[in-house]
Amino acid sequence: MSLSEIHNLTRSVLIREGASPEHADSVADCVRNAERDGASSHGMYRVPGYIRSLRSGKVRGDADPSLTRVNDTVMRCEGDRSFVSLVHRRYLEQVIQVARQHGVCIFAARRIAHWAALWPETEAIADAGLVAFACTSYLPTVAPHGTRHAFFGTNPVSFAWPRPLRPPLVFDMATSSSSLGDLSLKARMGEEVPEGTGLDGEGKVSKDPSEILKGCLLPFGGYKGSHLAMAVELLAGPLIGETTSYETAREDNQDGGPPLGGELIVAMSLDIISGSKESAEAAERFLKHLEEMESFGMPGQRRHQRRLDLGKRKIDAVTMAEIEKLLESSK
Amino acid sequence: MSLSEIHNLTRSVLIREGASPEHADSVADCVRNAERDGASSHGMYRVPGYIRSLRSGKVRGDADPSLTRVNDTVMRCEGDRSFVSLVHRRYLEQVIQVARQHGVCIFAARRIAHWAALWPETEAIADAGLVAFACTSYLPTVAPHGTRHAFFGTNPVSFAWPRPLRPPLVFDMATSSSSLGDLSLKARMGEEVPEGTGLDGEGKVSKDPSEILKGCLLPFGGYKGSHLAMAVELLAGPLIGETTSYETAREDNQDGGPPLGGELIVAMSLDIISGSKESAEAAERFLKHLEEMESFGMPGQRRHQRRLDLGKRKIDAVTMAEIEKLLESSK
Repeated sequence: MSLSEIHNLTRSVLIREGASPEHADSVADCVRNAERDGASSHGMYRVPGYIRSLRSGKVRGDADPSLTRVNDTVMRCEGDRSFVSLVHRRYLEQVIQVARQHGVCIFAARRIAHWAALWPETEAIADAGLVAFACTSYLPTVAPHGTRHAFFGTNPVSFAWPRPLRPPLVFDMATSSSSLGDLSLKARMGEEVPEGTGLDGEGKVSKDPSEILKGCLLPFGGYKGSHLAMAVELLAGPLIGETTSYETAREDNQDGGPPLGGELIVAMSLDIISGSKESAEAAERFLKHLEEMESFGMPGQRRHQRRLDLGKRKIDAVTMAEIEKLLESSK
Repeated sequence: MSLSEIHNLTRSVLIREGASPEHADSVADCVRNAERDGASSHGMYRVPGYIRSLRSGKVRGDADPSLTRVNDTVMRCEGDRSFVSLVHRRYLEQVIQVARQHGVCIFAARRIAHWAALWPETEAIADAGLVAFACTSYLPTVAPHGTRHAFFGTNPVSFAWPRPLRPPLVFDMATSSSSLGDLSLKARMGEEVPEGTGLDGEGKVSKDPSEILKGCLLPFGGYKGSHLAMAVELLAGPLIGETTSYETAREDNQDGGPPLGGELIVAMSLDIISGSKESAEAAERFLKHLEEMESFGMPGQRRHQRRLDLGKRKIDAVTMAEIEKLLESSK
């Protein structure tokens, strides 16, 4: 499919399921950009879940997010049960303006369904010349270090740093050993995963992704990754007046789509905090040094290279069949 | 040694080396509190390095740190080549006040020597009811993922969350597989370390800490830990107008003490950002759930338990001999 076909199909499907044009368009941008960058696990692969959440009424097609300026630097957004991309479309520009003016912006998005990657928002902020951090929790999927039961979400964190005349430095990674999307794709392919990825339904170490899907993932990097996953629960939960993963699960209707929860975004101005225009150059020197190191892979680079290809993208047949079946069922 | 003996000895040694009473006292508090909590690698073990940095003139005994209020939420501190504990003693209270009033405080400490743990500052902020994050870089010690040469520092990050009527939740961890202090102590003991800890001087995987000290450490958790180490370089470096680890090394006089660099601290108000008094209770429910999980170890808990013991502490004989020898040499 071409990138515009991906966009149009997603948009029209979501509108058919009751999403407003603005809402559908924001999600379609996100899906197209994921496929454009080769991040399939956040592309069309997510559309069946988006349909399900709209159908079950968990996500409101006509959601109308609103913004509260708590003070100069803190903003709270009530998502009104929207897909998070609608919130970003409406308010990321204000996040950027606030950080430019005051040096920092704390943006608390609540009652949103976040099933996309986090780089769309951190990269957009860094594209505007700012430093960005974002995190969100999920549903219990990951066993805290030392335990054998899912309690934390996959809890991704993303960080982006602006670079002059080139795409920002961006990383976006689950605090679990693997993302759930990648694990599911591997289960579908019948591939093995490394020991330490997760536990089966009985709490035993397993290399079979299908068994891990019945059990739980483990944090990346042992207790340190587990600590980060815990911090994400608190930052994207109580700090912004939202639920942690285990509370999210209690409310969730298990429609197969994304749960409702929160996202924390922090944007910071390099110019204001450092107080010097030279800091951007110092960062470039550091990053160029790093790029020149043998065998170092700069995060985000592969996505940015794939983006240059404006041609067609291959969409997984299972995903397309699932979407068609869902559309049939509503006729 | 009793806790007050540890304090008095550290204080008097530093004063003898030219530190002002306020400066010496702030470092002595820090050393005593590390020994109190059983964190030996940040206790007396560091005193010889502190002496060396004062003697070489890298750290100024009479340093007079000053504060610039950039705006309502951003503060920059010029450390004037002090040990970081002096900066904390003077300005942490203002960080707390700003975050309480405005919801967030960004504190950029520059030209400081940070060789202590990070939990003293994050825990102090959380004791005041706020959420805290801190990070600092170091000297090239860690090979970026995929490479075989030291470029990142051990780059610790610390996070603290306030808890009513009990010590805060605090973690403080290197983004390397091991801290340099622990690695040095293991080399001294002749112990092995797990594969993946580091590389020897020729870039080969090694389990011998003495060989790794000639080579480099690896990040914890593969590429994900490496990404975090990179973020710390940028956050505690260019973002605050300070050096990254490889630039720090170029300026450093290799006196065997801590290098000069920066620290970023972020303090946030749960009440203002969440907009609800109930958020603190929600966080407690989450943390209690976690504590009840079988085999889960809450970070910081061991330190807080050891703290209850007001008795004497064992100080490593090698460290004491080193301090005595240094004092002899200046007579």
